[in-house]
Amino acid sequence: MDPNALPVAVDAMGGDNAPSEIIKGAELALEAGIPVLLVGQPDALTGISDIPTKFASEVIGMGEDPASAVRKKKDSSLVRSAEAVRDGHAIAMVSAGNTGATMASALLKIGRIRGVSRPAIATPIPVLGRTKPNILLDSGANAECNPEWLVQFAEMGAVYARDRFSTSKPKIGLLSIGEEPGKGSSLAKEAFKLLSDQDWQKRCSGEFVGNVEGRDLMNPDIDVIVTDGFTGNVALKTLEGTAKSIVSSLLDAFSSTPEAAEGAKLLAPALLPLYERLDPESVGGAILLGIKGVAIVSHGSSGPKAIFNAISIAHELSTDKHVQHLEEVIRR
Amino acid sequence: MDPNALPVAVDAMGGDNAPSEIIKGAELALEAGIPVLLVGQPDALTGISDIPTKFASEVIGMGEDPASAVRKKKDSSLVRSAEAVRDGHAIAMVSAGNTGATMASALLKIGRIRGVSRPAIATPIPVLGRTKPNILLDSGANAECNPEWLVQFAEMGAVYARDRFSTSKPKIGLLSIGEEPGKGSSLAKEAFKLLSDQDWQKRCSGEFVGNVEGRDLMNPDIDVIVTDGFTGNVALKTLEGTAKSIVSSLLDAFSSTPEAAEGAKLLAPALLPLYERLDPESVGGAILLGIKGVAIVSHGSSGPKAIFNAISIAHELSTDKHVQHLEEVIRR
Repeated sequence: MDPNALPVAVDAMGGDNAPSEIIKGAELALEAGIPVLLVGQPDALTGISDIPTKFASEVIGMGEDPASAVRKKKDSSLVRSAEAVRDGHAIAMVSAGNTGATMASALLKIGRIRGVSRPAIATPIPVLGRTKPNILLDSGANAECNPEWLVQFAEMGAVYARDRFSTSKPKIGLLSIGEEPGKGSSLAKEAFKLLSDQDWQKRCSGEFVGNVEGRDLMNPDIDVIVTDGFTGNVALKTLEGTAKSIVSSLLDAFSSTPEAAEGAKLLAPALLPLYERLDPESVGGAILLGIKGVAIVSHGSSGPKAIFNAISIAHELSTDKHVQHLEEVIRR
Repeated sequence: MDPNALPVAVDAMGGDNAPSEIIKGAELALEAGIPVLLVGQPDALTGISDIPTKFASEVIGMGEDPASAVRKKKDSSLVRSAEAVRDGHAIAMVSAGNTGATMASALLKIGRIRGVSRPAIATPIPVLGRTKPNILLDSGANAECNPEWLVQFAEMGAVYARDRFSTSKPKIGLLSIGEEPGKGSSLAKEAFKLLSDQDWQKRCSGEFVGNVEGRDLMNPDIDVIVTDGFTGNVALKTLEGTAKSIVSSLLDAFSSTPEAAEGAKLLAPALLPLYERLDPESVGGAILLGIKGVAIVSHGSSGPKAIFNAISIAHELSTDKHVQHLEEVIRR
């Protein structure tokens, strides 16, 4: 490990399993040679000697209003993590806590890339039978959008698909309610026109494939799905809720009779890949695109593996100059 | 069967399996004592002697633009089905065809209930482990809505939940991106305020339970989910697509190895109820609420069972005076 390499700041207090599981994830990263800075309350970080720590006296809860929490809790682990990036003490930040508050502190402390109208949350969507997920953005940062922002989301999504998943010419779809260009809300119709322009597609090496529908979120023929943060968040949570509902019904069925249990045992090896693909732990965290630094939001239910993944991705994107690539594509 | 009872008009030409499977569904209804009127092209209806028929020379395709198709194809099976209701030759209509065109012909020929601003499509959403589905509206008729319309959707959804599923005090949620009242788009925030009013809740015997999220579509603690037609359609198709993706991956896994196939055989009895619950055939069709007559849109992939279900529901709602109940609740 390069002794001078900057660490990834990890919010030790964010998520359902904080701080213990988050710290375990940070330890996994350390073992893999990725430098980490743990940010959290002194009590939570006592006894940690192998990982550098930074104390913060406050914690922003999952249910708190992002903007006001970030304003009020200046000494929170989230705000301090963002400041570590701003001040050059960390190259990236990771949190499994309040997504909105992570966005707010990153925006306030690290700031946005010049030319970016609104940063967006880009969430990986599992594609069954394919390793590479699709990318959905905005999945919740901006409840209301104008058509120009959606074009910028498309640009940023394309750069992210290239840097993170090595997709050379990402296929970008606009989420709407019918495949024909004339379908959808006025926002979708207007965005369709702007997205059909060749100029931005050339700039980010992306390809606009037209309208896609809710059923295409897991479609392997698409790479990036663009929408406003309201629709994106509803779609993301519908997908997660449906998968969870079905998986939980399956598990119930598996233990419902001795025959079923015997059958489930025989099926287990064949079902494991599907189960893993649907597991939020393995899909990886969402990224805040448009921020002048790498900020990853891991799922609230993250365990050590998910945190380790998020730290690895944050580290990789930072060293691969992802933010610089975004800056090159965004029209000033 | 009452020889004077009015039939349900069935569009024999609508859906992926038209006309043969649609006709089979109509025959099932006839066997169950429900009078049917089959509407379709002469060729498709030759040789049918047990069911009354009405000829229409044209067919509106699944991909056609609803408004212009209904305007141009005056002698289409869909338009003629709606006219049969308008002219008192049928008590209700059923189609597995183009949803938008069904809405357009019903709206144009049968008309809307006095006081209804915009009819909405109400779609049943399977709730795993419960027989009664949730109701999602608007699931696609109105891409853009104002907050007042959403209150009317809530009223109509409550009446429908009572008439169709015997839910005495339906719980109504507003689809948004956070449970707190202040969350969401300006449409959602404004609608939240109007929905919090006690007056409409009393009128329709519904109960507003606040914001719900995408993950709540299958939540057994809710009965009716209200949203605009853009968000509703994206959510519906995301749910359908996710379920289809998972089920198809499961079926692949079941036949992947001899052991898996053996396990699947043992599991089959335990999995069957889940499979059936997720099957669009068993969930039943969507209804167009706000039309001055019962109009049911069955899933495009409908087979005889789904068509039979749709006809039964249409017949039951008509004889139970569902439209009259809506008229009593809608404020003029």
